[in-house]
Amino acid sequence: MAHEHYMRRALSLAQQAEGRTWPNPMVGCVIVKDGDVIAEGLHRQAGTAHAERDALDNASADVRGATLYVNLEPCCHTAKRTPPCAQALVAAGIARVVIANIDPNPAVSGAGITLLRAAGIEVVTGVLETEGARLNEVFFHNQRSQLPFVHLKIASTLDGRVAMANGQSQWITGETARRHGHRLRATHTAIAVGANTVRTDNPRLTVRLPDYAGPQPIRLVFSRSGKLPADSHVLTDAEAVQTRVISDPSLRNALQALYQEGICNILLEGGPQLSTEFLKAGLVQRISHYLNPSYLGEGLSALNGYELQDLHQRLTLKHVEYSVLEDDLVLSGRL
Amino acid sequence: MAHEHYMRRALSLAQQAEGRTWPNPMVGCVIVKDGDVIAEGLHRQAGTAHAERDALDNASADVRGATLYVNLEPCCHTAKRTPPCAQALVAAGIARVVIANIDPNPAVSGAGITLLRAAGIEVVTGVLETEGARLNEVFFHNQRSQLPFVHLKIASTLDGRVAMANGQSQWITGETARRHGHRLRATHTAIAVGANTVRTDNPRLTVRLPDYAGPQPIRLVFSRSGKLPADSHVLTDAEAVQTRVISDPSLRNALQALYQEGICNILLEGGPQLSTEFLKAGLVQRISHYLNPSYLGEGLSALNGYELQDLHQRLTLKHVEYSVLEDDLVLSGRL
Repeated sequence: MAHEHYMRRALSLAQQAEGRTWPNPMVGCVIVKDGDVIAEGLHRQAGTAHAERDALDNASADVRGATLYVNLEPCCHTAKRTPPCAQALVAAGIARVVIANIDPNPAVSGAGITLLRAAGIEVVTGVLETEGARLNEVFFHNQRSQLPFVHLKIASTLDGRVAMANGQSQWITGETARRHGHRLRATHTAIAVGANTVRTDNPRLTVRLPDYAGPQPIRLVFSRSGKLPADSHVLTDAEAVQTRVISDPSLRNALQALYQEGICNILLEGGPQLSTEFLKAGLVQRISHYLNPSYLGEGLSALNGYELQDLHQRLTLKHVEYSVLEDDLVLSGRL
Repeated sequence: MAHEHYMRRALSLAQQAEGRTWPNPMVGCVIVKDGDVIAEGLHRQAGTAHAERDALDNASADVRGATLYVNLEPCCHTAKRTPPCAQALVAAGIARVVIANIDPNPAVSGAGITLLRAAGIEVVTGVLETEGARLNEVFFHNQRSQLPFVHLKIASTLDGRVAMANGQSQWITGETARRHGHRLRATHTAIAVGANTVRTDNPRLTVRLPDYAGPQPIRLVFSRSGKLPADSHVLTDAEAVQTRVISDPSLRNALQALYQEGICNILLEGGPQLSTEFLKAGLVQRISHYLNPSYLGEGLSALNGYELQDLHQRLTLKHVEYSVLEDDLVLSGRL
């Protein structure tokens, strides 16, 4: 279907700016006239032109009467650095606007569409809505909850063990999976672990990839006592000024404060106790589970103290994506 | 490569008889002359012609000077119901024989090839050897160990739980995975469980598939005490005469006896205690692990009492195959 074809291109353009648009969403735009693509655009980073403006400025032909594809509802508010897009589309003479997702931002939601329709523009919504929601899941969650998007990472054997009973846990998965884990870190503003993980594993929690030149994520260590070994990597390495020790007894309060400080998403890397506390509080939005095809037997489980009354109450991942990583596998899904 | 192309066809022919050749291997054969396939054949079931004989009988042209592809080394022994193939190939004037696997049967191993070469036939071995070994893994294991091939089936959540702490375990995986599990049963001579599983779940252990008309597997219940609830499905249903209660204190002795009675392969369906005993004794050759993308928390693990000294000693699956079954996943690999 033609709508899906052009929307797929718009999503692909949007994704080109992955990691650079925060706190804004990723948005791409394609303008089509008489079956020809006459413009493409995207939102490159916060503070620069929106995707619709970018596309209008790039048009190779007159956009009057054209169809504009954009994955997010055009904005109509003015409380920001760039002029509203809905009005710009009306002024440019666009005849039809095709949208994947309604803007979840309460200041816009539906208002952009209303403005377009009032000006006589035909509006089609919901084209590749699921794909669009996946692309901007962090932004959508932020807007709706005013909390960071929490992504739990687990690495276990097929019998669900993350470490030996004595805590030995290094390298359950192979090199390809570990590299994948570093790329995952690179897409998060912050990495979180519990104090026990710092005490047991002394992780660096940095992005270590060849040629990686992006920012290192902020390290968050959740510790009720606030006490950590003074020689921990997170307290002594070159990025140590970015490490935050969180002693707030309420995880939700802690996350609210972190969001206000601009932390949009967090990769939670365990251990079992902290992961379980986040899950019990309903504060996890996605789980990526790395599986090594092996059995460890007696040992530590991914969760600790998570108890259900009935089998049907278990936490089930939705929209699960699978990738084979050499000998390992990663499953990722929404809660 | 041409050799692989024709061998793939031979393997595909061999597989057409899956489930009907025991205790013989699955064997397919293709005869090629001047780039044309002039014959195909397969071993259809025990007691009927071998694949090479079948192909020779089907040839649409003179086979003198042709190349014959067969996934298993041609036999040269005479202690069976059909005449040896190696001699037949010499007599027919075949110029070249291409083989995937050497016969693991001590009565043949390498002797067929020696006979062919002595008669001036060119022999190429090892073409699609891995694929051939996978196809006939049961036969190869039987020949080498004189024991049934044991295939452990596990169904768990991502945190490795197979049941609630109270034993509740029905339907961890969805319908597609359960149907896959029934197809798996249909490829095994026997299904084994521990007495606890009969007491807790009272399973039927039958193949229940629409249009399935094949034989029902023999049910094996391992019970040290020999005591089972008298009203168990396995003791009271239409197939009850085929149920065997095994009280032998040695699993290996029990398996040796079962192999002598013609049981080539066993699907071991738990529970955790029996599965762990088989694994500890080194008696499991393959694990198929059905995974539901969910977390159960506290509950029963797939294994019970399997203890390692070091992370690197864990049981690792090799040659892992993955299939997505609607919401679930199945991993299958060799030990």
